[in-house]
Amino acid sequence: MEYAAIYHGMNRRNCYAVDKNRFMIRIRTKKGDMKRVVLHTQDKYLSIQHVDTAQQYEMEKYATDCFLDYYQVQISMDVICLRYYFELEDMEGQIAYYGNHSFFQSPIDNIDKMFDCPQNLREEEMYLIPDWAEGKVVYQIFPNRFATTEQVPDEVWYQTPMGHRENLKGNLRGIIQHLMHMKDLGIDVIYMTPIFRSDSMHKYDTIDYYEIDPSFGSTDDLRELVDRAHELGMRVILDGVFNHTSQKFFAFADIMEKGQESKYVDWYYIDGFPLKSKWGEKPNFKTFGYFGGMPKLNLSNPEVAQYVTDVAVYWIQNCHIDGWRLDVGDEVSHYFWKKFRQAVKTANPDALLIGEVWHYAQDFLEGDEWDTVMNYHFYEAVKDYVAKECISASRFVEELSFMKGNIHSKVYPVLWNLIDSHDTERFLHSSGEKKEKLRLAAAFQLLLPGMPMMYYGDEYGMTGGPDPDCRRGMVWKEEYQDQEMFAWYQSLLKARHNYPSLTKGETMLAQGEDNQNLVKIVRNYQDETVTLIFHGAGEPVDLSEYQGRQDLITDEIFEGQIKPYEVVLFKA
Amino acid sequence: MEYAAIYHGMNRRNCYAVDKNRFMIRIRTKKGDMKRVVLHTQDKYLSIQHVDTAQQYEMEKYATDCFLDYYQVQISMDVICLRYYFELEDMEGQIAYYGNHSFFQSPIDNIDKMFDCPQNLREEEMYLIPDWAEGKVVYQIFPNRFATTEQVPDEVWYQTPMGHRENLKGNLRGIIQHLMHMKDLGIDVIYMTPIFRSDSMHKYDTIDYYEIDPSFGSTDDLRELVDRAHELGMRVILDGVFNHTSQKFFAFADIMEKGQESKYVDWYYIDGFPLKSKWGEKPNFKTFGYFGGMPKLNLSNPEVAQYVTDVAVYWIQNCHIDGWRLDVGDEVSHYFWKKFRQAVKTANPDALLIGEVWHYAQDFLEGDEWDTVMNYHFYEAVKDYVAKECISASRFVEELSFMKGNIHSKVYPVLWNLIDSHDTERFLHSSGEKKEKLRLAAAFQLLLPGMPMMYYGDEYGMTGGPDPDCRRGMVWKEEYQDQEMFAWYQSLLKARHNYPSLTKGETMLAQGEDNQNLVKIVRNYQDETVTLIFHGAGEPVDLSEYQGRQDLITDEIFEGQIKPYEVVLFKA
Repeated sequence: MEYAAIYHGMNRRNCYAVDKNRFMIRIRTKKGDMKRVVLHTQDKYLSIQHVDTAQQYEMEKYATDCFLDYYQVQISMDVICLRYYFELEDMEGQIAYYGNHSFFQSPIDNIDKMFDCPQNLREEEMYLIPDWAEGKVVYQIFPNRFATTEQVPDEVWYQTPMGHRENLKGNLRGIIQHLMHMKDLGIDVIYMTPIFRSDSMHKYDTIDYYEIDPSFGSTDDLRELVDRAHELGMRVILDGVFNHTSQKFFAFADIMEKGQESKYVDWYYIDGFPLKSKWGEKPNFKTFGYFGGMPKLNLSNPEVAQYVTDVAVYWIQNCHIDGWRLDVGDEVSHYFWKKFRQAVKTANPDALLIGEVWHYAQDFLEGDEWDTVMNYHFYEAVKDYVAKECISASRFVEELSFMKGNIHSKVYPVLWNLIDSHDTERFLHSSGEKKEKLRLAAAFQLLLPGMPMMYYGDEYGMTGGPDPDCRRGMVWKEEYQDQEMFAWYQSLLKARHNYPSLTKGETMLAQGEDNQNLVKIVRNYQDETVTLIFHGAGEPVDLSEYQGRQDLITDEIFEGQIKPYEVVLFKA
Repeated sequence: MEYAAIYHGMNRRNCYAVDKNRFMIRIRTKKGDMKRVVLHTQDKYLSIQHVDTAQQYEMEKYATDCFLDYYQVQISMDVICLRYYFELEDMEGQIAYYGNHSFFQSPIDNIDKMFDCPQNLREEEMYLIPDWAEGKVVYQIFPNRFATTEQVPDEVWYQTPMGHRENLKGNLRGIIQHLMHMKDLGIDVIYMTPIFRSDSMHKYDTIDYYEIDPSFGSTDDLRELVDRAHELGMRVILDGVFNHTSQKFFAFADIMEKGQESKYVDWYYIDGFPLKSKWGEKPNFKTFGYFGGMPKLNLSNPEVAQYVTDVAVYWIQNCHIDGWRLDVGDEVSHYFWKKFRQAVKTANPDALLIGEVWHYAQDFLEGDEWDTVMNYHFYEAVKDYVAKECISASRFVEELSFMKGNIHSKVYPVLWNLIDSHDTERFLHSSGEKKEKLRLAAAFQLLLPGMPMMYYGDEYGMTGGPDPDCRRGMVWKEEYQDQEMFAWYQSLLKARHNYPSLTKGETMLAQGEDNQNLVKIVRNYQDETVTLIFHGAGEPVDLSEYQGRQDLITDEIFEGQIKPYEVVLFKA
């Protein structure tokens, strides 16, 4: 038994409420080490009074990554404090008992040597994520480049490569005109990169958080966009760029004008005067990414924190937006995000909060900050397996399982799975323009647990190199549209809508078969079980056991062989 | 290499600020597995601009417990985000590179495969613990039983066994009269169990948080006690019983009187009316430990939270107390403690907050809730090694090292190390009345890192079984006092004052030698290094290499042999 790999913490990551009187307990062990793991529980205070409340529960292995197995069990409890320990039996039949971070050779009867979980504490900190979110599909729009009601010549709109400063005059009314495109595709949530007043095309340097950029339209336009989307059953998420502003934002502008005398000096992190704020100069104030044009807000100043949370609440109350994607989320303190969540959820408990972090973001995802994150872990795994072909099928599955094993069980089904974004090269570009690779990546994105976040135009096979070339004009002209790709996306999205296993289903099995380069995933929801088989690079593989069955993505009869970069979906 | 045991998280437990521009990075590996661990760092945003900022740091193994080695390194950084990965070389010379939760065979150059630490985030959440606390000695008083200015017959004061309801009429003026006892002993901090109005002797069921229990004295008495203690250079901590109240607390009394009509219904967790509040009845409201006499406050009600934080601030501002020990800390939500800390630290940043949790309390000790805890992990280890003799010397050291390995480096030196309390049997009782065992336990308590929390009377060799017998009248009569024990405590405390290694020193070596049952600890502070050798049960052991050296506890010349339950202290 590999004791060094065994870990359970009496914390909100390994022991938490999932509902009133209902708790999740998790533990990790070395991969392949255990034959069985059993949870033993009892009531702390009744034990002291010698009342027998002992229970035991077989734990389920719910994930396996490169080196670890993850076990969990949900239990019902109505106690003041639960005391518990684990019985671990390894493959050789050796048994150990694990309580309060120590191992014992016999069952634990001293309650102080057990783990401890106070019910009230756990219930008060229960993770509440809007019910509507699970399994919904997000569509990311870069408003300057998505659609416009202006007259823009094709040579401007469709220019390649795309530069940072090209103004394609996209606007909100353009988006409104194309809502049915998203509806037809099967989209549930529209997420727009920033739309507030700013001089840049990307608008990640806000001048006025209370004004829609005039080139995009007006507050009325946003209200109409949201109302129409809601009528179509779609939700709208805005991009909250609260880490930094433009130099022209009133507070920084005041500092630039008045220097030390400005009453806004504490709104930023300023090291000295005169300000070094010119392009190319090393700024003497904190910034996003050393860009002087993006001074970093001091959100530890309560006045600034209040200003920003007011902005967030204003757009929820005035235009009924459905949440905020939070830019550069990990460079802003936990203190601020806790306040921010409280303000937003008070305004609308159904608002969804999505942090931008490119790494595994545990500390932000414990129930009191964000609801979910842009899942760049998923992005890296799909890029490595499909586009770069630098990891094996089994490693790919292990990478996905790392998230399943570690992330809170309520967050896992709402992770924003992406294969590209306005910040990365297009997936097709990463794949050397191989369309079949984009098809496979889209299938992973749209058929595995989570909230897929599609980047506009992928559905028509758009390509583009790293930022800014990934932000090209949306291909509305049919000659630029890959209709087969669109049909493929539609069938993937249709499958999601037809088979609840694909949106609400537990993953029963996830396995990479390296000799044939197959990824096999079985998902289940209520009476429905589906099998997904994905094939990476390589040779065609015989799957004769499925011959004659209907592939539920294409609705065609499967002929018994899966080609490279293909995927098939069968009902059990 | 045991990959399954290797863990680093990009979180406030493994990567945090210890000062401005100064950061601690920690990682754990399987015990004995690694020859060396190296941290590689670079600046995220400058890397994108192809500026070479690469650095590397040898990591130090700072703790080893049963199955794990813990490594750390402090680095200086002035960046927006640090990117980093680990180079791990095992005993066979095999090397792995670990970044963003994955292992690689060659040094990592893709910054997205590295770990990520935003500086601002870490600095804003830096753990700030009052500077005065490190290494200070706490003396716990149970006021009804410590000292009195009333006439109390000896047969009442010294009765054994002691019951729950015996009123010994101890009071604050009694404590004031004995301040010099504590000062002479070498105490720095006085912690009194609850002193507010209550019908019980223990006063853990508060009737009025704004009134000193009349049997104990008045607000003026408390103010005088604190002022006099401060004049003597001692601090005073009160017991904050905020999880629950007495039934006679005004809010619950109102509910008992008016039922559902009471405006205080939401101050508690009430399941139904009529209230089942009688002794012996199963209460239909939440309580501490199923005791109807201790209804649990609903601290998620902002009104109640405000009431309680007002109480905490009131006593800080009005009587200048130096902090709060927080009763049943782990049954109260993190949301409340975060608010509570803010209120208390705003009133006095130097106030110390100590939670009562009997288990490893990670989630409360991340910088935004408590400063420290009563260290029951230490209690269990000393009880098992010294009193019960059920663990080996090496296991004892491993248990202590578990805390060192896991707990935040700023909290480790202020853990309240106890060997008994008002809630446990006296250590002497646990030891079968063997005084030499109490002497050894006291040596562990007073010579190892932390804030020792002594329980009143241990210094005179008091004994007593489990609560309530552990709460006997303090032995002020000389005939009941073990003067040798007092002298022993004095010499331990004197050694602490003489040798800063014992209060501020890093532990350079901690090792259990099971064949001779010795615990050997080397501590260092600046130019001073001291060696501590403790001997558990067994036979005398020759330590001839130290023969003729001065033992710095007794100031006697060491004759070369250490007897069972003895300890010696040498300067290097």
